[in-house]
Amino acid sequence: MADLELLSAEVAKANKALPLARLVTMHSGNASGYSPEDDILFIKPSGMDYDEITPENVVPVRVSSGEVLAQGVRPSVDLPHHLFLYRNMPEIRGVIHTHSNFATAFAAVGKPVPLVLTAIADEFGAEIPCTPYVDNEGEHIGEAILKYKNRAPAILLGNHGVFAWGKSPRDAVKAAVMIEDVAKTVWLAMQIGKPHEIPPEEAEKWYDRYHNRYGQSQV
Amino acid sequence: MADLELLSAEVAKANKALPLARLVTMHSGNASGYSPEDDILFIKPSGMDYDEITPENVVPVRVSSGEVLAQGVRPSVDLPHHLFLYRNMPEIRGVIHTHSNFATAFAAVGKPVPLVLTAIADEFGAEIPCTPYVDNEGEHIGEAILKYKNRAPAILLGNHGVFAWGKSPRDAVKAAVMIEDVAKTVWLAMQIGKPHEIPPEEAEKWYDRYHNRYGQSQV
Amino acid sequence: MADLELLSAEVAKANKALPLARLVTMHSGNASGYSPEDDILFIKPSGMDYDEITPENVVPVRVSSGEVLAQGVRPSVDLPHHLFLYRNMPEIRGVIHTHSNFATAFAAVGKPVPLVLTAIADEFGAEIPCTPYVDNEGEHIGEAILKYKNRAPAILLGNHGVFAWGKSPRDAVKAAVMIEDVAKTVWLAMQIGKPHEIPPEEAEKWYDRYHNRYGQSQV
Amino acid sequence: MADLELLSAEVAKANKALPLARLVTMHSGNASGYSPEDDILFIKPSGMDYDEITPENVVPVRVSSGEVLAQGVRPSVDLPHHLFLYRNMPEIRGVIHTHSNFATAFAAVGKPVPLVLTAIADEFGAEIPCTPYVDNEGEHIGEAILKYKNRAPAILLGNHGVFAWGKSPRDAVKAAVMIEDVAKTVWLAMQIGKPHEIPPEEAEKWYDRYHNRYGQSQV
Repeated sequence: MADLELLSAEVAKANKALPLARLVTMHSGNASGYSPEDDILFIKPSGMDYDEITPENVVPVRVSSGEVLAQGVRPSVDLPHHLFLYRNMPEIRGVIHTHSNFATAFAAVGKPVPLVLTAIADEFGAEIPCTPYVDNEGEHIGEAILKYKNRAPAILLGNHGVFAWGKSPRDAVKAAVMIEDVAKTVWLAMQIGKPHEIPPEEAEKWYDRYHNRYGQSQV
Repeated sequence: MADLELLSAEVAKANKALPLARLVTMHSGNASGYSPEDDILFIKPSGMDYDEITPENVVPVRVSSGEVLAQGVRPSVDLPHHLFLYRNMPEIRGVIHTHSNFATAFAAVGKPVPLVLTAIADEFGAEIPCTPYVDNEGEHIGEAILKYKNRAPAILLGNHGVFAWGKSPRDAVKAAVMIEDVAKTVWLAMQIGKPHEIPPEEAEKWYDRYHNRYGQSQV
Repeated sequence: MADLELLSAEVAKANKALPLARLVTMHSGNASGYSPEDDILFIKPSGMDYDEITPENVVPVRVSSGEVLAQGVRPSVDLPHHLFLYRNMPEIRGVIHTHSNFATAFAAVGKPVPLVLTAIADEFGAEIPCTPYVDNEGEHIGEAILKYKNRAPAILLGNHGVFAWGKSPRDAVKAAVMIEDVAKTVWLAMQIGKPHEIPPEEAEKWYDRYHNRYGQSQV
Repeated sequence: MADLELLSAEVAKANKALPLARLVTMHSGNASGYSPEDDILFIKPSGMDYDEITPENVVPVRVSSGEVLAQGVRPSVDLPHHLFLYRNMPEIRGVIHTHSNFATAFAAVGKPVPLVLTAIADEFGAEIPCTPYVDNEGEHIGEAILKYKNRAPAILLGNHGVFAWGKSPRDAVKAAVMIEDVAKTVWLAMQIGKPHEIPPEEAEKWYDRYHNRYGQSQV
């Protein structure tokens, strides 16, 4: 119970982080967090203003069945895609969907964000791939993500937007923020020349440093 | 009377939302709201700073006659266009005019914002059309809007800017915000490739989901 | 004396408005205001952070002689250009210089901002011209402005930035803000097509409405 | 001791200035400051949120040996590059590293920011050069900076980002802010024409004025 309270607070915070990081406009994005021990996720209520979201009103959902465990409030219409990702990527604990502008521009033309910056090597370790256009029916979105994803914790959906994920809602926020930031820089670079790809063996040096020697956690 | 107080408060709030959403610079936009039962609209005072707008100083106007019902304050110079829209689209209750940058860039070259994003299908259900240039005399602006609009609750005016509308001042704000957001993403996409159009039957799936299964109102 | 206190307060406010409107970075802009009755202008101190500017530390200067009337504080290095403009355009009371990004981009390629938006017709009544590059010696900047300006209360300096002016420091701020806003929209439009020029007789309709029927002052 | 307290406060302030100036996203940048008398630098802790940085938690490091003088906190992974710069440019007292978007776009295509604005002549006195891509091993980054730098207190690292420096942490912040600002304007200019280079003898006039007659320090 205590853990679920913590999770609902994290999910509320992750949703509120989206407009602060300018990743969403009006209601165009949502965050969720998952507790496999409890078989529960919390997700943004549908169409709710971000400043009205609280730990009390994010919507609990049984992940195995998809059953909504709260009354009087509807979960995000993107719930099926969040469920699919948690069921098929058992290691992740947070998922975010946005239409952030620069990343979605790549999605609108069906192009990946190429691995041309050390920041992309750091955070994603690969180009950020783009699925073809898929509709919103059944598991089409989730299946496309699973089919086209690589090691990067984010993907573009053709003509649509971004899904990002991580080991916590906070990590998913970081991936969603960083994909927009690197998409912006790459987009800018493409207007003034041809950005040079970083070869995989070079990318590995940055990915390794960032994932094994960076931050305070191992002190 | 109570309802008119509510409406004037909504109109003040809608006007003040414009600079917060970065849709206007200095005084370059205005919002109005309409009560058909009272035959009255409220609209922004001409040339007033947004932070000075209050429910008490938005200008009441008799819609059937165009008579200004307050003394000592002039309504927006765009009042005739607001009046024309309320008289000719009887279902709408809010209208907004802006020169928001990305949308107006499309207007400057006389191009619609094409239906290339699921977010456009969600919110507008069609491309956002653009009228030819018209001057500010008589009913030229209103007539052009009526002639060129489609199901989308917004339109571009050639060389000029945006009109958006909705079932309330708040809904009109949402349409004005979203047209700028999608215009930005489409503009970005056009610099790095050719965005793929979403076919009408696919667009309908998103429009249907958004208008029939989204939000909290039907719980 | 009372009037000079008012003027120094207006000049402080105009300088502080520049970072709020995102027209300047670090210290890259300055505002002044002029009282012909007193033969005095106030101008930004050189290299001072905008949040440290007060009505007490803006620098008074005798306009006829150029003599600095305060001790222990240096005026902006752009003082000679402000002096030249007040001496040669006797009707103006406020001058602003910035390097605002979009307007300066036009200056960097030596192009005017063309009259392709009704907002440009409203505010400026003409294209915003661009001088050739001039150096910072003698009266070169002031002379170039005088030679190339048209009716618009703003001009671009080749490879350099913007000068704007008006009947008060506040009006000069408005011109400086609006040139950046319209430069942005025109720049955006130029990336997706060829913006159509508004013919002079059409531009006059907008200029006339804006200058004769707009705002609250004539009520 | 008192001086080191002052320095740690300046370094904390310089790090916190980076997100305020929008030069960094999440944790993508770091600032340091150096006291040669004490053989000590202070630098950002690795992976720490900027709003958690204080004068007490910036990390002290012995510059001659590279020894970290605090326990339980790791310095930025970019520490080796800061050390190299202080050891090889004995006059500098502050260093900043960012991935700011416009400057990094030039780095992604391996191009310098050309000297086409008077603001570049003012602040940098030369084009801002760009090194080829180098990896993060050994002294490769520091050596590339030393090899390719000119008189400008900033440089681009190919596919990577920006290093900037100055006579104090505050001066380094100014250089980091200004390189992003001028990179933005030049980038914008390159989309609408060919910006004209300012000849060296003309650039010298601006550099001289800015470095010898500007600001309050010599009053």
